[in-house]
Amino acid sequence: YGKNTIKFLRLHKEGKKQFVKEVEVCAHLRLTSPQEYLDGNNSLVIPTDTIKNIVLVLAKKNGIPSLEQFAIDICNHFMTTFCQVAYVKAYVQEVPWQRLHEDGVPHIHSFICVPDGIRFCEAEQCRNGPLIVFAGIKDLKLMKTTQSGFEGFYKNEHTTLPERHDRILCGEFFCKWSYGERKDFDFNCIWKKIRECILESFAGPPDCGEYSPSYQKTVNCIQMHVLSRVPQVQVIEVVLNNTFYNVVDMKNLGLTNDKEVLVPVETPYGSCTCTLGRKS
Amino acid sequence: YGKNTIKFLRLHKEGKKQFVKEVEVCAHLRLTSPQEYLDGNNSLVIPTDTIKNIVLVLAKKNGIPSLEQFAIDICNHFMTTFCQVAYVKAYVQEVPWQRLHEDGVPHIHSFICVPDGIRFCEAEQCRNGPLIVFAGIKDLKLMKTTQSGFEGFYKNEHTTLPERHDRILCGEFFCKWSYGERKDFDFNCIWKKIRECILESFAGPPDCGEYSPSYQKTVNCIQMHVLSRVPQVQVIEVVLNNTFYNVVDMKNLGLTNDKEVLVPVETPYGSCTCTLGRKS
Amino acid sequence: YGKNTIKFLRLHKEGKKQFVKEVEVCAHLRLTSPQEYLDGNNSLVIPTDTIKNIVLVLAKKNGIPSLEQFAIDICNHFMTTFCQVAYVKAYVQEVPWQRLHEDGVPHIHSFICVPDGIRFCEAEQCRNGPLIVFAGIKDLKLMKTTQSGFEGFYKNEHTTLPERHDRILCGEFFCKWSYGERKDFDFNCIWKKIRECILESFAGPPDCGEYSPSYQKTVNCIQMHVLSRVPQVQVIEVVLNNTFYNVVDMKNLGLTNDKEVLVPVETPYGSCTCTLGRKS
Amino acid sequence: YGKNTIKFLRLHKEGKKQFVKEVEVCAHLRLTSPQEYLDGNNSLVIPTDTIKNIVLVLAKKNGIPSLEQFAIDICNHFMTTFCQVAYVKAYVQEVPWQRLHEDGVPHIHSFICVPDGIRFCEAEQCRNGPLIVFAGIKDLKLMKTTQSGFEGFYKNEHTTLPERHDRILCGEFFCKWSYGERKDFDFNCIWKKIRECILESFAGPPDCGEYSPSYQKTVNCIQMHVLSRVPQVQVIEVVLNNTFYNVVDMKNLGLTNDKEVLVPVETPYGSCTCTLGRKS
Repeated sequence: YGKNTIKFLRLHKEGKKQFVKEVEVCAHLRLTSPQEYLDGNNSLVIPTDTIKNIVLVLAKKNGIPSLEQFAIDICNHFMTTFCQVAYVKAYVQEVPWQRLHEDGVPHIHSFICVPDGIRFCEAEQCRNGPLIVFAGIKDLKLMKTTQSGFEGFYKNEHTTLPERHDRILCGEFFCKWSYGERKDFDFNCIWKKIRECILESFAGPPDCGEYSPSYQKTVNCIQMHVLSRVPQVQVIEVVLNNTFYNVVDMKNLGLTNDKEVLVPVETPYGSCTCTLGRKS
Repeated sequence: YGKNTIKFLRLHKEGKKQFVKEVEVCAHLRLTSPQEYLDGNNSLVIPTDTIKNIVLVLAKKNGIPSLEQFAIDICNHFMTTFCQVAYVKAYVQEVPWQRLHEDGVPHIHSFICVPDGIRFCEAEQCRNGPLIVFAGIKDLKLMKTTQSGFEGFYKNEHTTLPERHDRILCGEFFCKWSYGERKDFDFNCIWKKIRECILESFAGPPDCGEYSPSYQKTVNCIQMHVLSRVPQVQVIEVVLNNTFYNVVDMKNLGLTNDKEVLVPVETPYGSCTCTLGRKS
Repeated sequence: YGKNTIKFLRLHKEGKKQFVKEVEVCAHLRLTSPQEYLDGNNSLVIPTDTIKNIVLVLAKKNGIPSLEQFAIDICNHFMTTFCQVAYVKAYVQEVPWQRLHEDGVPHIHSFICVPDGIRFCEAEQCRNGPLIVFAGIKDLKLMKTTQSGFEGFYKNEHTTLPERHDRILCGEFFCKWSYGERKDFDFNCIWKKIRECILESFAGPPDCGEYSPSYQKTVNCIQMHVLSRVPQVQVIEVVLNNTFYNVVDMKNLGLTNDKEVLVPVETPYGSCTCTLGRKS
Repeated sequence: YGKNTIKFLRLHKEGKKQFVKEVEVCAHLRLTSPQEYLDGNNSLVIPTDTIKNIVLVLAKKNGIPSLEQFAIDICNHFMTTFCQVAYVKAYVQEVPWQRLHEDGVPHIHSFICVPDGIRFCEAEQCRNGPLIVFAGIKDLKLMKTTQSGFEGFYKNEHTTLPERHDRILCGEFFCKWSYGERKDFDFNCIWKKIRECILESFAGPPDCGEYSPSYQKTVNCIQMHVLSRVPQVQVIEVVLNNTFYNVVDMKNLGLTNDKEVLVPVETPYGSCTCTLGRKS
């Protein structure tokens, strides 16, 4: 079982307008025989260097119309070319270059890196099995400054946390969903729609928001919203790495602090994870 | 000479609409006497814990109308309160929370972290000297996929770099400028204007761009543009950490690669720095 | 499903001699009911803050005789105290403080951090299932400057890697093994013995070393050696993140480079993983 | 003004015994004319790629007998070869590979990375000025679990820190010293001696230690000790990035915590810096 990581840039032009994709590709392979481990027999081993060449050649020949299509291309190539490959997984992640605009006019060849959530995807396949496509977003940091609490939790002699009905909800999201075996979706369009669903269900309506009784419930709301609005999604996993903020006690300093100044609590920090699918 | 770093969140409301600033403050102090180093006499030492309390109390009392104003407030407090302080510098850096929008409607209390260049500022003062204000942007990553070259450089027996007139220009910018002794500017508005100037002079006109003959010249263009367009800026320093990309040679693989697939060169990497001021 | 990370220091004294353990503990819990996700009903949820208190109280009461014993204590506490817990995993990792020595004399209370491989362990248990103990070492960086090659690998039209019989073998190891259900071992002593086995089988005899035909075979040698020498180990997983070094071609510079100057290849980088157990 | 970073490995053999140095070199150059910034005239610019070649060629030809000698070689080369160079600084930092030992026997070609303080050096020169050599250690993490306090500090209405006479002293040290213009020292030997001095004066005698009344005083003790014991050192700068630990208050949990369980305070954290030289 081995994996390799390759970073590169793929440019293309339409007239004078330039387009750029910078990606990090990680290819995982498992061979049908472990003989290189047991006997030191390398005759079936596909070197890292060859894998890199294949990925770059595919990028040159096919371009990267979507991360998902590129991951599918990689899987297909390894499965059809190498009969010694028992399993392949291609992970593709994007550097979030966005076209620069000046007074609303898009620039033909200049870009800025805007990492407000990183798009990634995965395609995986076992020999004789279906090719499954996943997509996701990671490093997405969101905050609600109100409309969040945590009450009615389990208590015993080790409980010191007070109940709170107006805390900060803040954290970093990792969301990954499966499209099942379908490879003919408009992956770019669906991804944008799912990102919007995540933001909407995190925040609630713009004029009033929606109360979150726990990190867990917010995770579930996002999942339910995506599953109900995007029929192409089969299963969705959400991991939320919480950042806690404590209201600073200023009594000793002669001041009342009405949730105006808060400090992040670096440890303990927590995370909650849930995977939700459709009834079959 | 000592410094301290404090992270916190400052919230405020206007009606039901919530506003958030999350900042990291670093306060540097030098005392008039080094007796705590030489004699272990702590009687003049202001503990880290006290500095933290002061910063939080100032945030509570004054809010953070701009990073620059908050840095000025910190300097003023230390200079006027502690006669043993010989020098104070306050560095303030922002976590780039942006208000979420749904279909163009701003959300009243939800935010997303968008780190496309981090705003920071500094205020510094020696006892009996003026208070000087600096501001800047860092971690700003920009790329031009064409209109960049590097030719006519110095050559000798150690030169292996070919001349190129159509390379990628990509890097991370650090820009820091001085407002001199003035403290009454609209710092938020000026900062946005300078950021626009930087992007404009990096990219050139949206329809055609502008040719860059070197990283150094691009640094200089940015500086000249900011100094000519923003009269409040006295001096501007720009550091550009270059990322080089090489066109992959695909001859061995039987393919022609017309600047379509490139790989980042992780080492050597370079940086160029220049500080430019006005003639007095 | 949730997890929490807590960092702390545990001190104890024997006479005037001081002992220190600094650890990072990560507790994973899964509850019997997902009601907090589905209904926002928090009545079974054990807050992060409570988990932190429990971990600290256990450290205070029991000390940390070994990382493994502490992980077992945490699992036991959660399983016996909370009937709503369906699954618990405790991960414990050590900050590698080592006692300072002056001219061979150990210091009674001073320590230096020596991160030459980080010790960690895990204990996990499902309700009504056995408690399983794992241990491991991570971030262990090793290099052999000779006695390593890679030849006879699979070749096709995408192969550009030359065969090499005298390359550098360098990488970062992650090794994790299972002790099964036994909880009464001398975990500290066994861990040291396994670390020695890993180094020995990586390096070979001190006077001549042992030839490695591939990263994969070296991984397997380590596993075989540990399983044969340490009967307490049931299964061992080894992940090796390779660092490749290329001999610099100095022909253009008029020099012959006989594997004297090499540069690290940052991308592609690879890793190989294998899990090996005993026949039952 | 520009700088470049290059990483590489230098191997050499004595008989069958192999030796390795892995270094990161950063070369800073300032040219006599800023014409490449102002006019886009590159005719004096020495490309990053050429600088890399020169550093690798010097490593090939001269080897790296000590980091300091290698930095001196780099400075000399640039000053004597390029009349357009007005200033050069060479920074060299080592990856801390240590030879593996099996039962006390050194291995002929295997190494382990032991980052318990990173050795570095700098050589710098202005045209027509002397070449000055610096050396140092960084990322050196030390802890004393007792014999440290902080009392008698300045107090006012913002003070909440209690006085303490038995706290933890822990931090990361950066030490950098100057050897002045001398280039003929046994740099490897002196560096080891200075490292020992730093550890000794941090820890005090092994049987009882030495009380530290503040981080600042400990910094000063280290400087005084090095200057008194190592006559080759002209000036020494020490930066100490403190890590604070708080004794956990367990009263609410019904327990007395006699400095047995402590948690790190991640923010605010502080640092103190001092530079000390000899009277001329």
